Amino acid sequence: MLIVIGGVAAGLSAAARARRLDPRLEILVLEKGPVISYGACGLPYLVEGRVAGPADLIVYTPEYFRKERQIEVRTNSRVATIAHPRREVVLESGERLRYERLVVATGARCETRGIAGFGAPHAFTLHTLDDAERMRAFLRDRRPRTAAVIGAGYIGVEAADALRRRGLAVTVFEASPHALLRDDAAVTEAVRKQLERHHVELRTGERVSGIDDLRFDMVVVAAGFRPNTELAAEAGIEIGRTGAIRTDDRMETTLRGVFAAGDCAEVNHLVTNRPAWIPLGTTANKTGRVAGACAAGGRERFAGVVGTSIVSIFGMGFATTGFSAAQARAEGFTPVVARVEANTRPKYYAPAKTTVELVADRATRRLVGGAVIGEDGAAGRINVIAGALQARMRIDEFEQLDLAYSPPFSPVWDPLLVAAQQLLKQF
Amino acid sequence: MLIVIGGVAAGLSAAARARRLDPRLEILVLEKGPVISYGACGLPYLVEGRVAGPADLIVYTPEYFRKERQIEVRTNSRVATIAHPRREVVLESGERLRYERLVVATGARCETRGIAGFGAPHAFTLHTLDDAERMRAFLRDRRPRTAAVIGAGYIGVEAADALRRRGLAVTVFEASPHALLRDDAAVTEAVRKQLERHHVELRTGERVSGIDDLRFDMVVVAAGFRPNTELAAEAGIEIGRTGAIRTDDRMETTLRGVFAAGDCAEVNHLVTNRPAWIPLGTTANKTGRVAGACAAGGRERFAGVVGTSIVSIFGMGFATTGFSAAQARAEGFTPVVARVEANTRPKYYAPAKTTVELVADRATRRLVGGAVIGEDGAAGRINVIAGALQARMRIDEFEQLDLAYSPPFSPVWDPLLVAAQQLLKQF
Repeated sequence: MLIVIGGVAAGLSAAARARRLDPRLEILVLEKGPVISYGACGLPYLVEGRVAGPADLIVYTPEYFRKERQIEVRTNSRVATIAHPRREVVLESGERLRYERLVVATGARCETRGIAGFGAPHAFTLHTLDDAERMRAFLRDRRPRTAAVIGAGYIGVEAADALRRRGLAVTVFEASPHALLRDDAAVTEAVRKQLERHHVELRTGERVSGIDDLRFDMVVVAAGFRPNTELAAEAGIEIGRTGAIRTDDRMETTLRGVFAAGDCAEVNHLVTNRPAWIPLGTTANKTGRVAGACAAGGRERFAGVVGTSIVSIFGMGFATTGFSAAQARAEGFTPVVARVEANTRPKYYAPAKTTVELVADRATRRLVGGAVIGEDGAAGRINVIAGALQARMRIDEFEQLDLAYSPPFSPVWDPLLVAAQQLLKQF
Repeated sequence: MLIVIGGVAAGLSAAARARRLDPRLEILVLEKGPVISYGACGLPYLVEGRVAGPADLIVYTPEYFRKERQIEVRTNSRVATIAHPRREVVLESGERLRYERLVVATGARCETRGIAGFGAPHAFTLHTLDDAERMRAFLRDRRPRTAAVIGAGYIGVEAADALRRRGLAVTVFEASPHALLRDDAAVTEAVRKQLERHHVELRTGERVSGIDDLRFDMVVVAAGFRPNTELAAEAGIEIGRTGAIRTDDRMETTLRGVFAAGDCAEVNHLVTNRPAWIPLGTTANKTGRVAGACAAGGRERFAGVVGTSIVSIFGMGFATTGFSAAQARAEGFTPVVARVEANTRPKYYAPAKTTVELVADRATRRLVGGAVIGEDGAAGRINVIAGALQARMRIDEFEQLDLAYSPPFSPVWDPLLVAAQQLLKQF
């Protein structure tokens, strides 16, 4: 019996992959909430109204898994304890279920306990379908005019974008000096500029400790993201220095036969080869697959991540990968940075502007990070940098990348190559 | 004295780069035509009318180079002979000019000599500004209704697109069975489908030997592309097996002190490590820079290309890099292919479709080629594959690329990763 704790991205990827490798394995998924398999990254678009209803975000139902994959799924089934010496999980109901292999995919949460008054009816997080539904009902019934968003990470800026599009006056409070969780002043300034262009105020360096002082019609808490590791820790599974569950490259924890995947787990950072906690949907799916395969006796491995992400703020893409200069320095590199603003097409073919930042290490000449900001091609360009990080490419090689050129798609010197040339001048 | 033969992409890149490395070097550029530094890749858009006039395609004038870069440029100056033992070039006028270093950037041409009746006033190539101007005048004054395009390479399909947008009924004749110079039946079928959707007929496997039999109001010859190597060959410079000028990784020819760059030169193919002739604007600029740097005493090198290109056909991007399966087999690989059609965004975020093809080598598991077709993100995705080819990435690494995900930009499993998963199943 394989038991999977958690029925969203990582947990269901694990269950489905285990089934594919072993058609006869008994598989049970335990989900604490009422629904499984929802696209959590789509929640801001549900609030915005672009996504019509919650059903559009649900990819699979428990019935689907039962019928089509022979995977048993139980919703509203919160696990209270993992009793590994007896290979049992104990549900809150007291029921005990035996396993041979276990996948822990307990996800992460917004830690709201430090925020006084969070229980108020006009206070929200945006983490589950329920959260989004409650927010939609509040917007519809109470017609709030002002909103405070606490946290300028991905969910924070996406929530700000969605609420602004619904006509609210929005202010974003961020305790750190940085937006998008990235110690990069230029990126933060670009985010601020784009938010201000759309009349959203970004107040960095302002910690909010209680929502009662905030005179806003509604408050969205999108800060204090933490891995859900309590269950694992109490079972004696080692928690890494990042605060998430320690794993090896098979996604196995320090307890043999117990795997972890998704937002609760550490993964290897390919730029530093050190454990990192970077909770993102892509990684949840990938680590889930590997955990499920290995739990079913397969031999897959997960090499790691470089920390690539992108967010749309009022139609402009803000994409980052690897480390900013400040982060690279903190990781022990000697960063060399170039930052260019360049055209995305030749002058005669209606170009847009894009900003590209590249960070390399002085000693090894290796690329260690980058950022791309633009309405046009930000995803494609950050992915090229991400691939280069993964391949441990030096800036000298990157500068000679044979990128596609044709006037409708790019200038003859792609902005990536312009940035690389600027960077090389500093070596 | 550095003499550069050719004043378009490669030649001017060489001259400009040499100047940057050596502020006091005497530099002379000899251009056979009346203008320099025009964006040849923009010519179809000039014919289409999207680019208003030829001036929009001219980046720099001879005066600019003279004043701002202290580079002498002579237009209408065709070189008749390179007399290397005396380090002289002889112009058609009989004038002799001495050099210490020489850069040959003589480009390529459409070979029209095999096409009977090409001299007719309704027959065109689309290679120079003059060509485009003559075509524009013909379209304006003669109002042709039908056009035949000979050749379904990049210029051929771009010309077909431009003429169709101007209202002509267009038929494209291609002697080979393939469009876009790629032995890939699926790509050719996709090109055919897209052309037909816009009422342009593609007739593959039809060689046109004379234009008199073609009952069309105008004929555009976009086939028979050949490197201009006669001058170099007569000077005793070795021509490679591809038919273009042989070069080393400094872009030096077999004559010491004589460099070659751009459409007339061979470059190293990074997938095979063998010489290749892939005349494209990006490579012209890059090899020009390296040739200019080395001619000025610098120590730069050009690693090579992977053969990345993209073309827009009625708004859809057709991008390829490396080798198709058939080409890979011809190069000595044992190709394994996956081809998927996938969504470019989650179902709830108005996805478009894109096609991704990946080719890997059975023995080494290395990626050796790919193709991406789509209205959305084709350039970004082909560039990720191109980077992977350059880094000699195996499919196992490629499958774990940490690509950016957010609903406005991509699905959680990017089409590249879906294709990689399909490919891995075959190993």
